[in-house]
Amino acid sequence: MRELLHPRSVAIVGASDDPTKTTGRPLRFLRAAGYAGAIYPVNPHRETVQGERAWPSIEALPEAPEHAYIVAPTEAVLDAVQRCGRRGVRVATVLANGFSEAGEEGREREARLRAVVAETGIRVIGPSSLGVVNLRSRLLLTANAAFAEPDLPHGSIFVASQSGTMIGSILSRGKARAIGFAGLVSVGNEVDLSAGEVCEATLDDPAITGYLLFLETLRKASHLRRFASAAAERGKAVVAYKLGRSAAGAELSITHTGALAGEDDVADAFFRECGIARVHTLDGLIEGLPLVARIPLRSTRRPRVCVVTTTGGGAAMVVDQLGVRGVDVARLRDLTLAGTRYDAMKSALDEELADSDSDLVVAVPGSSARFEPELAVRPVIDSAGAVKPLAAFVVPDAPDALAMLSQAGVPSFRTPEACADAIAAAFSRHCRVGGNPETEAARHAPLGPLDPRLRGNDKMLDEVESYERLARLGIRHARIDDPSFPVALKVLSRDIAHKSRAGGVVLGIANEEELRRAKEEMRRRTGVDRFLVQEMARGVAEALIGYRFDAQVGPIVMVAAGGVLAEMHRDRSIRLAPVDLETAREMVSEVKALRAGDVEALAASIVALSRLAEDATVVEAEVNPMMVLEKGVVAVDALVRVVERS
Amino acid sequence: MRELLHPRSVAIVGASDDPTKTTGRPLRFLRAAGYAGAIYPVNPHRETVQGERAWPSIEALPEAPEHAYIVAPTEAVLDAVQRCGRRGVRVATVLANGFSEAGEEGREREARLRAVVAETGIRVIGPSSLGVVNLRSRLLLTANAAFAEPDLPHGSIFVASQSGTMIGSILSRGKARAIGFAGLVSVGNEVDLSAGEVCEATLDDPAITGYLLFLETLRKASHLRRFASAAAERGKAVVAYKLGRSAAGAELSITHTGALAGEDDVADAFFRECGIARVHTLDGLIEGLPLVARIPLRSTRRPRVCVVTTTGGGAAMVVDQLGVRGVDVARLRDLTLAGTRYDAMKSALDEELADSDSDLVVAVPGSSARFEPELAVRPVIDSAGAVKPLAAFVVPDAPDALAMLSQAGVPSFRTPEACADAIAAAFSRHCRVGGNPETEAARHAPLGPLDPRLRGNDKMLDEVESYERLARLGIRHARIDDPSFPVALKVLSRDIAHKSRAGGVVLGIANEEELRRAKEEMRRRTGVDRFLVQEMARGVAEALIGYRFDAQVGPIVMVAAGGVLAEMHRDRSIRLAPVDLETAREMVSEVKALRAGDVEALAASIVALSRLAEDATVVEAEVNPMMVLEKGVVAVDALVRVVERS
Repeated sequence: MRELLHPRSVAIVGASDDPTKTTGRPLRFLRAAGYAGAIYPVNPHRETVQGERAWPSIEALPEAPEHAYIVAPTEAVLDAVQRCGRRGVRVATVLANGFSEAGEEGREREARLRAVVAETGIRVIGPSSLGVVNLRSRLLLTANAAFAEPDLPHGSIFVASQSGTMIGSILSRGKARAIGFAGLVSVGNEVDLSAGEVCEATLDDPAITGYLLFLETLRKASHLRRFASAAAERGKAVVAYKLGRSAAGAELSITHTGALAGEDDVADAFFRECGIARVHTLDGLIEGLPLVARIPLRSTRRPRVCVVTTTGGGAAMVVDQLGVRGVDVARLRDLTLAGTRYDAMKSALDEELADSDSDLVVAVPGSSARFEPELAVRPVIDSAGAVKPLAAFVVPDAPDALAMLSQAGVPSFRTPEACADAIAAAFSRHCRVGGNPETEAARHAPLGPLDPRLRGNDKMLDEVESYERLARLGIRHARIDDPSFPVALKVLSRDIAHKSRAGGVVLGIANEEELRRAKEEMRRRTGVDRFLVQEMARGVAEALIGYRFDAQVGPIVMVAAGGVLAEMHRDRSIRLAPVDLETAREMVSEVKALRAGDVEALAASIVALSRLAEDATVVEAEVNPMMVLEKGVVAVDALVRVVERS
Repeated sequence: MRELLHPRSVAIVGASDDPTKTTGRPLRFLRAAGYAGAIYPVNPHRETVQGERAWPSIEALPEAPEHAYIVAPTEAVLDAVQRCGRRGVRVATVLANGFSEAGEEGREREARLRAVVAETGIRVIGPSSLGVVNLRSRLLLTANAAFAEPDLPHGSIFVASQSGTMIGSILSRGKARAIGFAGLVSVGNEVDLSAGEVCEATLDDPAITGYLLFLETLRKASHLRRFASAAAERGKAVVAYKLGRSAAGAELSITHTGALAGEDDVADAFFRECGIARVHTLDGLIEGLPLVARIPLRSTRRPRVCVVTTTGGGAAMVVDQLGVRGVDVARLRDLTLAGTRYDAMKSALDEELADSDSDLVVAVPGSSARFEPELAVRPVIDSAGAVKPLAAFVVPDAPDALAMLSQAGVPSFRTPEACADAIAAAFSRHCRVGGNPETEAARHAPLGPLDPRLRGNDKMLDEVESYERLARLGIRHARIDDPSFPVALKVLSRDIAHKSRAGGVVLGIANEEELRRAKEEMRRRTGVDRFLVQEMARGVAEALIGYRFDAQVGPIVMVAAGGVLAEMHRDRSIRLAPVDLETAREMVSEVKALRAGDVEALAASIVALSRLAEDATVVEAEVNPMMVLEKGVVAVDALVRVVERS
């Protein structure tokens, strides 16, 4: 895909003569930047465009341009991509919107675009792409107004964004922080090339050291996962900002797993395990990469941070923000105003950097940073060579001090929130580089519309069938063959998901006579005459374990505390499936209300359930409740949904 | 207190000859700014200081300066303040630290400083004060390095900060956002004059339109409350940032109320009810005031926000951040890139501003804001005159566009987080301006070390005594005179706070014989032979209601769901006490797990309990659980702590 970011020639299909118009910008920006390749403006209505020769069509060009930016209106896109494909153009980037987001007509248009891609072999960026930028080769093939920037900030960061605005906003915000970029791609709707694929294509470029992703949704997650894994192997850090934190967690789902592991929760688990640092502030995205790059991908303990400051109040903001995000500050060392001297700051930093008890040192210079950076900012730069990472939050507005820090490669932050956000995101990663290769293989299995679990034609198994399916994994249930009293009577049907609500559960039946009567009444209430009689089991705690094949990220497994309140409070832990025992133990320890009984057996049952990831016939499975006993665990209700054979 | 901010003459006691030293800065800054009053450097060791005549002592001055900044070291402070007091200086600001924060010796020093204040009548700012700044009168009586600023940003905001660094950091960060200040005071440890008193002293200054507070802790909360109330009456908005969000909520307390209503939770309730908008981001503090000033102090419904944008991705960040903070976005109107035109933006904004269905419109201009603000930023300014408030978040780095907005008085934000933070803070206020005057009076009662409830020599009442105390308020308990079986047997002692843990509770006793045996065993276990026999009560829900006299903010009342999980998840609502029925209903509705039974009776019991605020003999009271019945509520355990008479 050299033609994506390093084309020797480009066409702009639909280029406007007016350089201030959106469709006039790419030509203007390419010329202003001094792009060295051939540029072919295509416009059938004009002889010239912005003073240059315009070509009536792609066919009329003297050569097939390697990359075409199609800025023509929606109605003209299909024809233009097709002509480009036939002419031998390798990559077309499409500006127009009006595809999958635009109702039935748009979806049809998108299907036709896919067909053109398949037919001609052309690769497409977009639609809804504001363009492709490679700063080194001065390829400013973009309609984003922010690229009118006079001195473009060159650097080693590569950006992929689903939002077109954000490539310009990240560029301008980075520039204001002396942070530079190698390239920026507005991937748009990712109908063909995905953010993951675009980034992956740049992985072997030694001039690119890290990645920023701006995501509106998790599209083509398997590509992202593959890219992130390869980036981790190369030691290239990835930071992502994803919208949707406030999305209502509760999906329309018949299981609790669906309600407790909502879209954004699953995304969190996905990023964590891919080794992508997910930040939650815009400044954290812009400023976070240098820090994330210096933190190990998987920390073995809760991170401990040491803060060295000349201002107690300023440093306390960082300490507070870290605390809110669950990161401990092991030591706060306040040199006070009297310690605002190069020597005092330098020796305090060097001492703390030499101390093995912390994972990161954060320097917080106070008011002096604005006009006297030599006092408390210069020592940060001079101490930053140590093995242990050193970051800085500068309390006053001090653009020069921040620029000094950035240029010296010291992770630095304008706000306490961004500082704490990036630190928490960096330490949240649980990437399993070099983990169990079998597990890794299962994780990297491609997801997509072809997966049978996404077809939608699935069916629920009844409780006995569900138990049988789970028994194959080694998950034990309360006795249903020849049970002793007291017993529970439950209706047995594939059509009743919520048995209690349907009057299909009676607990604590003491003898045969009571059982007979209970069956009669239940038959009357539910209209069903298949029943399950199960021995009563009482645990010291109740858990819920669930498995779900998520449409975006694939198999996930969850454990939660049982009961209504636990659900209300979302006390649960989620991972991509399958998981090993160590991870399952970690999951149990993350659930506050699970402290009693055989938590080791519970962890083993999570491992067992998570193996469903290897079974392409199961869409969802849940044990609720799983009784946690003094010794062992036992399922007393279960629900499995499988792919319908047809 | 004219002499605090408008002195006609100042002395700098301990002024250094070296203008780059901390103690040399005030003289340098006053001269650079052109302060018009008399300046007397006092330094017994030198004839001149920075080229000016130095005076050997306060006594040697030709007049009593109105305000003295004492920058001498800790050991010299007491003597200097005393001499100033005797000489007739009205206000002394003290730079040194080493007082209450510095162990036993420091506390003694502080006590002696208080004695000097009492003896001489001088008023003190500090210790640990970086100074007092009044931009209009060019009074730069400060040692904060950031005041080397060449063009000081004049404006109408007044700042009081417990952190000295922050007066400089707020000034510089404000300047970078075209936000200006009238004055800034570093109040330090508030040994004498408090932040509340300092702000209160400026309330009648028409040139001051709003206040920013930076607080490390809630010190002298009654002063803050009185100031905030007076500010609210004058329509002057107050925004506060307070450290301590991450503080462990659980205090060392024998009651659940103590554990569930921790220091920072109580501070939240305090700010909300004082009408102070508490922000949680530094940018929110800097940028929030113009917005907060335009939002009513108490909204009658959940706020509804409308967003108008030219960039879906940029606007979605604000929508997401608002969602995280519980603010609904009623409508998101995306004009897209194609709508990035003055007319399109202007008419969309005007339409939304005219719509009665929302409380606030937020404009989100995209990349064009950086170089082409006429397209999507100018219409925001031109539409901002409407009755409904209009704010803006600008997606790219666009300092010029932000400055245009600020200068036009349009609330504007650099990050989606600060924008959402300020909006949520503005709408969180529940100030009762014009509320029940009796309640208001109780709220404004002074708190302080003299309050008997803070003396610490309190005692616990036993359960029967506690019931009696609560019965006076109209809170009913389960029957203990002639109870019917089944009954509960409980040990009765002032010394046992956790009866269950001590083996002092047996539930469900069916008859006299069982009761007799249970008493015998309990006597053996606990060594106590006073018992309470109480009729069993079973509710449809269990609640906890608690009252506590908080050392910082005074009386508070809380309601929570009963049970272990509720406590773990902190599902509760807190208010300053007393509360009226409307507020109590609001509190119940804020507790997720309280949905069943007679919630109206529960609300009435909260009102009753909250009246303890008027009783200076009760330190803490808790009913746990309060059984919520189908009709009514009934206490089945209670604990009251009262002030010991002595």
